[in-house]
Amino acid sequence: MEARASTNAKSVLDAVVHHGEMIDLSHALDAGMPVYPQHAPYTLSLHRRHGDPHAKPRIADSSFANEIIVMSAHTSTHIDALGHFSRCGHVHGGEPASDIETAKGLARLDVTDIGPIWRPATLFDIAGWRGVDALRPGEEITAADFEGCAARNALDLRPGDIALVRTGWARHWRDSSLFNGSQGGLPGPGRDGAQWLIDRGVSMVGSDTPAFEVIPSVGDSVHAMLLVDKAIHIIENLNLESLAEREARRFLFVGLPLRMVGATGSPLRPIAVL
Amino acid sequence: MEARASTNAKSVLDAVVHHGEMIDLSHALDAGMPVYPQHAPYTLSLHRRHGDPHAKPRIADSSFANEIIVMSAHTSTHIDALGHFSRCGHVHGGEPASDIETAKGLARLDVTDIGPIWRPATLFDIAGWRGVDALRPGEEITAADFEGCAARNALDLRPGDIALVRTGWARHWRDSSLFNGSQGGLPGPGRDGAQWLIDRGVSMVGSDTPAFEVIPSVGDSVHAMLLVDKAIHIIENLNLESLAEREARRFLFVGLPLRMVGATGSPLRPIAVL
Amino acid sequence: MEARASTNAKSVLDAVVHHGEMIDLSHALDAGMPVYPQHAPYTLSLHRRHGDPHAKPRIADSSFANEIIVMSAHTSTHIDALGHFSRCGHVHGGEPASDIETAKGLARLDVTDIGPIWRPATLFDIAGWRGVDALRPGEEITAADFEGCAARNALDLRPGDIALVRTGWARHWRDSSLFNGSQGGLPGPGRDGAQWLIDRGVSMVGSDTPAFEVIPSVGDSVHAMLLVDKAIHIIENLNLESLAEREARRFLFVGLPLRMVGATGSPLRPIAVL
Amino acid sequence: MEARASTNAKSVLDAVVHHGEMIDLSHALDAGMPVYPQHAPYTLSLHRRHGDPHAKPRIADSSFANEIIVMSAHTSTHIDALGHFSRCGHVHGGEPASDIETAKGLARLDVTDIGPIWRPATLFDIAGWRGVDALRPGEEITAADFEGCAARNALDLRPGDIALVRTGWARHWRDSSLFNGSQGGLPGPGRDGAQWLIDRGVSMVGSDTPAFEVIPSVGDSVHAMLLVDKAIHIIENLNLESLAEREARRFLFVGLPLRMVGATGSPLRPIAVL
Repeated sequence: MEARASTNAKSVLDAVVHHGEMIDLSHALDAGMPVYPQHAPYTLSLHRRHGDPHAKPRIADSSFANEIIVMSAHTSTHIDALGHFSRCGHVHGGEPASDIETAKGLARLDVTDIGPIWRPATLFDIAGWRGVDALRPGEEITAADFEGCAARNALDLRPGDIALVRTGWARHWRDSSLFNGSQGGLPGPGRDGAQWLIDRGVSMVGSDTPAFEVIPSVGDSVHAMLLVDKAIHIIENLNLESLAEREARRFLFVGLPLRMVGATGSPLRPIAVL
Repeated sequence: MEARASTNAKSVLDAVVHHGEMIDLSHALDAGMPVYPQHAPYTLSLHRRHGDPHAKPRIADSSFANEIIVMSAHTSTHIDALGHFSRCGHVHGGEPASDIETAKGLARLDVTDIGPIWRPATLFDIAGWRGVDALRPGEEITAADFEGCAARNALDLRPGDIALVRTGWARHWRDSSLFNGSQGGLPGPGRDGAQWLIDRGVSMVGSDTPAFEVIPSVGDSVHAMLLVDKAIHIIENLNLESLAEREARRFLFVGLPLRMVGATGSPLRPIAVL
Repeated sequence: MEARASTNAKSVLDAVVHHGEMIDLSHALDAGMPVYPQHAPYTLSLHRRHGDPHAKPRIADSSFANEIIVMSAHTSTHIDALGHFSRCGHVHGGEPASDIETAKGLARLDVTDIGPIWRPATLFDIAGWRGVDALRPGEEITAADFEGCAARNALDLRPGDIALVRTGWARHWRDSSLFNGSQGGLPGPGRDGAQWLIDRGVSMVGSDTPAFEVIPSVGDSVHAMLLVDKAIHIIENLNLESLAEREARRFLFVGLPLRMVGATGSPLRPIAVL
Repeated sequence: MEARASTNAKSVLDAVVHHGEMIDLSHALDAGMPVYPQHAPYTLSLHRRHGDPHAKPRIADSSFANEIIVMSAHTSTHIDALGHFSRCGHVHGGEPASDIETAKGLARLDVTDIGPIWRPATLFDIAGWRGVDALRPGEEITAADFEGCAARNALDLRPGDIALVRTGWARHWRDSSLFNGSQGGLPGPGRDGAQWLIDRGVSMVGSDTPAFEVIPSVGDSVHAMLLVDKAIHIIENLNLESLAEREARRFLFVGLPLRMVGATGSPLRPIAVL
């Protein structure tokens, strides 16, 4: 599923990076962020504090603090592993989903399949193209939208690239109800738009919503089309506002998913290098 | 504390990368890995499985799985935030440690201070230089060791660089007791070796042990010297074996810490680009 | 603080129990229950399921399932330990609160101080006395209310007894916002009512709200009056509806707090024996 | 499965209680206790401490502390729900185990089926009968042992009673490896001994080991015989030392499992009333 050995980081960078500016594409993780109700709630709590007694005296009267974190892998900006999704009870490759589920997480198709991500990416700023701050809840992005946006901006999406789709949704990050789609759904591609991306040979996709696809779904489950049918990973809850302000088009995308054995995804702090 | 705005990713890469090979410097996270007893134990458990009933019918008979993860930020390969450590009750900058501790984690000096890491790094393969698979528990790395290793390998460590120190400890990853130092301590720099690194102006340091410094400590708390006195971040539990096999010397180090508000550190999946 | 060694379970029961009916005074714990925003959210997730592979073959082709639970001690029906509360930075007995806080929880005044609870209790059905289903948010229960309710129902509250106060709030259990006091506060005693209970020598108090006291507080912190000043434990989120329907007045109260070392309280499933 | 509505607490107590002494049958919960490796590790950490900033000023300069707890239901002294166990993939009643497993825990046969426990119990002090401090790892308790112990002590076990079996294992509580059976197994009944208890019509059983049954199992899975075949609940990790010192034979057993919806068991703090 991966051909990382052949990735040459320098030539990829040279091919798409112009001046070398780094843009952070992540949201922070905190107690007030929107978490999908089906995922475990996020908690971070200090476990040991500096003043806590130590078992024995410490050199230089030093101390340390640490924390306990409870979370789902699908927290804040994150990537979906292939085994996160199934269609008709089967995961990518055709295996019954229940066959890969264990007390230690997914036995296969977990997030450790995803190597370091270092690829060219193209930004489809659909909100910008439509001249709005953000798409509306439930607003579909069609193949025609992708075509139109690509033509207007002379976008150059090549096989193996990552396609990032901006709906403007990052502006709603502090409004959990709206961000999570509880006020009429989420904007994003339906079957038609997703097929357009698949036909261009993208290796991964990402957007600034928690679902990537339009909710309610249109025509098919886009998650199933991508993860199950085509092994195309999905990155969600990206913050694409700075990229759009800079009118970025094609650039280097770098993301380093945690290698959590058995996990159905990983929080991610991706960057773009322009 | 950071001057990331001025980092030019392309010029940094051009300065140190030769052929462009990417090397993963992380260990995976799983239930069997060594976790320091003072940190919260790590658990990953599937929360929703594919066959679980959904609240309403789903398009394409699709389903998703997710997990609940419990962990400390200091799990597997990770980076320490400045507020992780104190000397005589004070954190970097002189504030009492208790002043920054809250029910939401650290109010300041947390891991969100650390931007994307994209810097030249130099490998001090101390184990290789000594001709051993791994240093012994409690074995100190002195300034003379750093000098000798640098001279032998013609190492070029410049101000602002990251210094990575290989002890060979990654070979003990599957032996928690030994790895955690319960069998006589850990190898690493004492005050003398740490001062040598500080004098060279390193911006960050890292090693393949869970403490970076020699345990039992020698001369001073190296954590306090680095984090508290000098605001130099520490990366621990690196896997430096592949780097050493390739005889890597100076290269690009890329790490993207999660922006967990209040956290005293973050798990990290760093890469080297050679 | 405790003198339970002298409690004779049989004579206590004989003194207050008439026919022997047991009434459950607890709410269940589930994902939809109201949890105070300052407490950690509650999550229960199956960890191992029956079909998960076992490390080795098992006799009789048997299997087991278990779960991972994340919670605060102050979840659903629960009891507060003395160290849960402080006044002006000091806990019961005068010690600075920070002196008993450690990485393992409270070093003293934790919930393990509370032995098995087996005591006479008296129900003050304030809602019934006022002829309402439930008191209003922020409605104070005064000494005069306790006097009036006691007189009307010929209540017999003796030193060492537990006083249970019914506001009717258990009816709001499925409305988290209202139950937690986000719609104008909570009904309960202010300083005046609390002092009346203290003057009668109660050993513990309980009510059907998450705070026992009126919120916003009136006159003083009733928690501080009880836990800090007088070492009187507080039981919260009781379900007193069945007791009220039976017009119970004095009865045996049995509660068995978990002996969680360091905890500031414990979930509780108390019963009344009539 | 439940017929507790008809339980008359007073008459049950009157039938078996002599002087009224209460004995605590639980172990405490702390970070050092033995936890079976297949269960989630236990962590308790203070979440909010007294000195932490509050969102707004508080009356009487008061403050509270709370904690975050991570655990399995099968922690320290606890009771198993029926759905905890399966035989050949089926739970009690014949349903496939997978049919009751959901993202919210067990849909049926969870711990909320267990009402307040208030029943006569009989202590089989097998260690005392054999004249040893504790049975050996893997030592089986047979029907003949139960017969012999009952005869010697004139035990009066009646249908509906709880049978408690003392192996002396509570003395190993601070030796996790031995306590968990990692040094040759655990003492307890095999098929033969379990059948003897079943034939006497016990409603529940309990012992001072983490498995109740002999490990390695002998003849059949005793858990399956009890939980799956007969709906007899199992209480584990009891501390029966004080009971044995008092030579208690028949007494009142009171246990109040938490009503955690979906849980496969509950921690328990049971008492005996003599």
